[in-house]
This record gives sequence, structure tokens and C-alpha cells, in this order.
Amino acid sequence: MKGIYLVTDEKASLGRPVLSVVSEAVRAGVSCVQLREKNKGTNEFLKEAAALKQLLEPLRIPLIINDRIDIALAVEADGVHIGQSDMPYKTARRLMGIDTIIGLSVETWEDVERAEELDVDYLGVSPIFPTPTKTDTQSPWGIDGLRSIRAFSRHPLVAIGGLGESNLRDVVEAGADVIAVVSAICSAPDPFDASRRLVEMFETVYSREEKRS
Amino acid sequence: MKGIYLVTDEKASLGRPVLSVVSEAVRAGVSCVQLREKNKGTNEFLKEAAALKQLLEPLRIPLIINDRIDIALAVEADGVHIGQSDMPYKTARRLMGIDTIIGLSVETWEDVERAEELDVDYLGVSPIFPTPTKTDTQSPWGIDGLRSIRAFSRHPLVAIGGLGESNLRDVVEAGADVIAVVSAICSAPDPFDASRRLVEMFETVYSREEKRS
Repeated sequence: MKGIYLVTDEKASLGRPVLSVVSEAVRAGVSCVQLREKNKGTNEFLKEAAALKQLLEPLRIPLIINDRIDIALAVEADGVHIGQSDMPYKTARRLMGIDTIIGLSVETWEDVERAEELDVDYLGVSPIFPTPTKTDTQSPWGIDGLRSIRAFSRHPLVAIGGLGESNLRDVVEAGADVIAVVSAICSAPDPFDASRRLVEMFETVYSREEKRS
Repeated sequence: MKGIYLVTDEKASLGRPVLSVVSEAVRAGVSCVQLREKNKGTNEFLKEAAALKQLLEPLRIPLIINDRIDIALAVEADGVHIGQSDMPYKTARRLMGIDTIIGLSVETWEDVERAEELDVDYLGVSPIFPTPTKTDTQSPWGIDGLRSIRAFSRHPLVAIGGLGESNLRDVVEAGADVIAVVSAICSAPDPFDASRRLVEMFETVYSREEKRS
């Protein structure tokens, strides 16, 4: 698991439909898409998820649903992302089955330690930097926090929170396998261009890191 | 399926925990409980559902979860209640399996006609009268609307919306098999007494209706 991971945010998308932002982002090489909907009713959420599934499946780009396992099961999404106030991991795994991706957000060191015993597919290290798009989180991990988690944890790390071109290099060098972004793509004047630059930058930095290790 | 069906509403419960209101109501003879939570996060909703499951299962009183099939699956609830803006019935049935209860709200005549082709376990005729606890609904069916649905539909009918002691008799006489209440129990000074009176009144009126038919 590596690359740029787009997390959708309809409100941050400057009035553009989520589907069109995702479509531009994947055309530019984004590796994974998480549909996050906190305000929609079940049926609207389901329709959006079904539309993304139709777009992403032929491209073999995983579709991850935030929180809602019912939506993930209904559209046969590739996985779910759960936070510490969502379904507990073991219940999520039982409902989703063993062949799906389950990512878990870690916001405290206790979360990181507990996750070590779980067969999660990745840890969402959240947030790395302060961010306006998610306000219900603990204090930011920062680059040093990410580095500590990298040294401790056996799981792939998806870094999220305030990430973009200006700090991608530092975050990859600190040990992130995946850079998750919201505003850097959703709120970009041109989501295709923004995605393209992030993907290219990631590939350059990550391959250099791989050679080093 | 018959009797009094309690639909929970934490906000309408005068500061009492949902679990305690439900506990009083089932001790007084309520036949079925629906957990409705529109504002809680997944984990809190799940904990509430698990607590109700533990209370209701030994009493063989069905626990129905509003909207959230993930919660219903996680706690092995007896069923789900879905509205017209929730998961479509066929998707809900596929996820829930054939041995569960699925109730479907009907708010327009088109909903009633479409439901005739579906193997739903009951129709939630909603709302019968105007109600402050649910504001996102169509105009009320009234007693005449309920009577028309009874004449047309093959499904058991759960009437909901503004129901209580003052109109229970009319609603049962118009063809409701089940009387669903929110405020009449949740906001009652004594939920046990209120439930007891509703249950006794239902039994008197319903058995008279059965003799008549």
C-alpha cells in the first residue's frame, strides 16, 4: 500500500460533485479513494458510493467507505475506514469479512499500542498537522509523532491531516507509506493538476526512501 | 404482529436514559422496541443497541434498529426499520437475511403501491397525525388514509405519528395491527403506567375488532 489516498469532502469541493473530483484525481494517478459523508442520509450516501464503485472498480482502485459498514456491504466496497468512535475493529472485521481492507485511525499513543494486536490493514495517523476539515480529533501528531509510530508499529501508515505539496516530503521521510489528502485535492482550482503533482512528488520521494532503506 | 410498539427518542425522554424508559415499557407489556438514534456516532449507537439487546432478548421482545443495518448486524437485532430515504428494501433484505423483520415506512400512496410487491414484514404508516418528533415527513395520513391502506394492502400495518390514549381506539378500528408510540411513553411522567394503560386499551379494542371480523 502506497501513494496518494483521496478522502472526499463534498463541502470542501467548491461546489463540484464528489464524483467529478474523484474522477479527475484517479485519472491523475491517485491510488485509493475514501468516501466520507457525515451529513447525508443512508440512501443518498448509498447512491454516491454506488457511483464511485462503478467508476473505480474497472480501474482497480480501492474504494473505502468511512465508518458505515452497511454502505460498504451494500455496494461491495473494498473496505472501510473506522475511527475510534466508530464500530470497534473486531466487530467491523466480523461483518466485513477477511478479504476486505480495514483502516483504523489512531489519535493517541494508546490507540497505536492497542492497534498492534489487531490485523488492521493500515493505521490512519490522524491528524499529522492541524486541519480545518476535521475538528473532532486529538492534538496533531506532528512529524516526530509519525516517526515514533513508524519505529513502533508493524502496520502500514496512512498519514492524514493538513497534508499537501509543502510537507509531503517530510511526511514520507518520517515513514508514511500513504499520504491521504482532503483539501489539497478537493479544494484545488484544478483537482487533476493538484493530484498529478502530488502523485509525481510522492513517487520521487518514496522511491528514494526505498533505496535508502 | 400486534400490540404497542415503542420507538425510542432520547431527546423526548425528559433526561431519562433510553434503557430505563424501555425497561419500564417492556415490564408493562409493550410488544416490540425500535431503537431510533439520529444524532449519535456509530460506537455510541452500537453500545445502546447492545444494551437493549441484552435487556430484550431474554424477554423475547423483538429489537428493531432504525435505518442502520450495520448496527443491526453487529448486535444481531431482530430487524430493521427503514424509511424511504434509507437503504432500499431489497438491499436491506439481502444484507439482513430472510429470517429478520424488515419494516418499511410509507408516506405516499406510491410508497404503498410499491410496497405491495415487496416481502416487507410490516408497513409503518407514517405519520397518522401531525407530530413534533418527526418533521421530515409528508402530510399526515389521518384515519381515512389508514383505512384506505388497510383495504388495499396485504401487509401488517404499524401506525405511527401522534398516537396515544386519546386516539388509539380510532386507529385500531381503522385497521392498525400495531400502535407505535414515541412521546406517549418516552415523555410520560411514568413510562410504566403510560405503557400499561396503552397495552390494556389496545388489548380491549383489538380483541373486540377480532371478534367483529
